[in-house]
Amino acid sequence: MHILVLGGAGMAGRKFIERLAKDGHLGAKTIAKVTAQDVVAAQAPAGAPSALEAAVSDLSVPGQAEALIASRPELIVHLAAIVSGEAEADFEKGYTINLDGTRYLFEAIRKAGEAYKPRLVFTSSIAVFGAPFHDKIEDEFFTTPLTSYGTQKAISELLLSDYTRRGFFDGISIRFPTICVRPGSPNKAASGFFSNIIREPLNGIEAVLPVSDQVRHWHASPRSAVNFLIHAATIDTNRIGARRTLTMPGLSCTVAEQIEALRKVAGEGVVARIKRVPDATINGIVAGWPQNFNAARATSLGFTSEASFEEIIRVHIEDELGGNFVK
Amino acid sequence: MHILVLGGAGMAGRKFIERLAKDGHLGAKTIAKVTAQDVVAAQAPAGAPSALEAAVSDLSVPGQAEALIASRPELIVHLAAIVSGEAEADFEKGYTINLDGTRYLFEAIRKAGEAYKPRLVFTSSIAVFGAPFHDKIEDEFFTTPLTSYGTQKAISELLLSDYTRRGFFDGISIRFPTICVRPGSPNKAASGFFSNIIREPLNGIEAVLPVSDQVRHWHASPRSAVNFLIHAATIDTNRIGARRTLTMPGLSCTVAEQIEALRKVAGEGVVARIKRVPDATINGIVAGWPQNFNAARATSLGFTSEASFEEIIRVHIEDELGGNFVK
Repeated sequence: MHILVLGGAGMAGRKFIERLAKDGHLGAKTIAKVTAQDVVAAQAPAGAPSALEAAVSDLSVPGQAEALIASRPELIVHLAAIVSGEAEADFEKGYTINLDGTRYLFEAIRKAGEAYKPRLVFTSSIAVFGAPFHDKIEDEFFTTPLTSYGTQKAISELLLSDYTRRGFFDGISIRFPTICVRPGSPNKAASGFFSNIIREPLNGIEAVLPVSDQVRHWHASPRSAVNFLIHAATIDTNRIGARRTLTMPGLSCTVAEQIEALRKVAGEGVVARIKRVPDATINGIVAGWPQNFNAARATSLGFTSEASFEEIIRVHIEDELGGNFVK
Repeated sequence: MHILVLGGAGMAGRKFIERLAKDGHLGAKTIAKVTAQDVVAAQAPAGAPSALEAAVSDLSVPGQAEALIASRPELIVHLAAIVSGEAEADFEKGYTINLDGTRYLFEAIRKAGEAYKPRLVFTSSIAVFGAPFHDKIEDEFFTTPLTSYGTQKAISELLLSDYTRRGFFDGISIRFPTICVRPGSPNKAASGFFSNIIREPLNGIEAVLPVSDQVRHWHASPRSAVNFLIHAATIDTNRIGARRTLTMPGLSCTVAEQIEALRKVAGEGVVARIKRVPDATINGIVAGWPQNFNAARATSLGFTSEASFEEIIRVHIEDELGGNFVK
C-alpha cells in the first residue's frame, strides 16, 4: 500500500514513519511506499524502505493537495499544522494553513471522484475545548475553543465528519493528549515544561518548572501517539459510526505526580535538577487547559495509552535514551 | 443607527425588518437606515421608513461583503443561507453560500480595521445536533451534525466565536427552534407539516399529516424569532462571555399536543381538516431530529418564547390572520 503522511517532518510524523519502516506493513498490508510531505524535506529514518519519498510542498497553496494525491495513496495521515502559539500570533497564517490547507486536501479527494476513497486520519487536539469544563471531560462535551488553533481543529473535525458522511473519504479525527516526554530540545511552547522537567534532568541538565506542583494535565507518550495513528489507520470504521472524532485516552496526573514518578524511576539526584521558577504568565495559560478526560469511546474502540507516569518515563528512556540516563 | 440585514427577503428577515419599521428604534437607538440584502430584492414593508434600502447581491461572491459593509453598519443580522435540503442536494453550493459567504463577511469586517467593530447576530440552527442525543439537549451537548447544512452552521458558530474573541466584531450566534406557524404556502421541507397542519386548516384548507401523533419537536413562533433577533442585537454581550452560541428557548410538544391545542383554540371543525397520510420517508427523517432542549443559558440571559402551543397558534392568528380564521 501507498501511505501519504502530511507533516511528515514533524515529531509525530517522523516517529510514525520510523514505525512503518520498522514494521514493513500496516495491518495486513505490505507497505510499498511512504510519501512524507512537509514544508521542509523529511529525513528518511534509519532502515527506511527504499520507497520512502520526501515531498516538499505547502498544502495551503492551491493545487498542491491535488499533486500530493495524484498517485492515489490508500492512507493519508494528516498531521500538518502550525502550532497554537503561531496560529494565535498570526491570524491569517493560522487559518490559511490549519483550515484552508485541510479543506484543499478534502476537496482534492472529493474531486478525485467516486473511485478514490482513502482512509484519512486527521490529528486534532484537546485545544478544541475551552474552560470552564468539567473536571473529567466526557465524549459528549461541547467544543468551545479559546484559541484560533483550537477553532481550526474543531472546524476540521466537522468537515471531516461531513465529507465522510457524504462518502468522499473514510475519515477519522483523533484528539491527541499533550505528548510527553517530547524528545528534542526544550521549546518555547507554554506546555514545554511538562516534558522539559523529565527530559532535561535525565540528560543531566537542569530544567525550570514554572507552575505549581498541583497543576493537573493530560498526557500520552510519543509511542502512544504512533499507536493511535496505527490503530486509526487500520480500525474497521463501521465500528465508529457517524461521529468520527475521538478523544484519545491518556493519563491525567499532577506535576507533583510527574516528579514523584521521576524519583521512583531515576532517583533523587535526577529530581534535584528541577528548579522551581514560578511564571505567572505560564500559570495563567495553563489554568485554562483541560486536566482530565473520560475517553470512553476511544477506549472501547481499542485505543490504549500509558497507565502511569512512570510508564511514560520508561517509554522515553527506552525509545529516546537507549535505556540509559544521567544519574 | 444603520442596520444591515443579510437574507432580508426571507421570512425571518422580512418580519425583523417589519418590526424595525414599526418600532422606529432598536434599544435606545433611533434607526436611521435599514439595508435589506438578498439575492432577490427585498420588499419594503408597509409603513417602512424611507431609508429602507434593498441591496441585491450574493454574499458568496468575493468582494460583495466588502461592498455591503462599506458604509459601516453598526448592526449586522446575518440570516442569509440556503436551506438544509438544498445544501444536501448540492454539496458545493451549500459550502459556497453557507460557509464561504459567512467567512467572506467575517473577513471583510476584520479587514475593515480596528475602528469598526459591529454587533453581528448570526442565526444558527438546531441542525448542528445529530442523533443520538439526550431527550432534553443541554447547552453543553456536543455538535455532531448529520447534514451539510448543520455542519456549515456549526462551523460558522465556531468562526463567529473566534472572530469575537479576537476582537474583530461583537458576535452572537442564536440557534433557532423550528419556526411554527410558518406563514405562506406549504413548502416541501420535511418539517413543513408542523406548520401546514395548523395554517391550512385555519384557512379552511385540508392539510396532510405524514407522521405519527407521538412525534415530538421544538417550536417557536415567527414573533419569537424576531424577539430573539432584537434581544441578540441589544443585549450587553459582556453578560455572555466567550461562549457566543446560544440555543434559543422554545416549546417542546408532540403532534398530538399541537392538534389538541388547535382544537382548543379553533374547534373540532378546523381539526377535522387534518388528514393522516403516513409517509415512511418523512417519518424516517423526522426520527433523527432533536425533540427537546434545556435552553438554560439563553433563558437566563433573557431570551423568551411561547409557553404553550395554544399561544403559538394565537400568535399566528393575530399576526397573520388579523384575528380571524375559517371555522
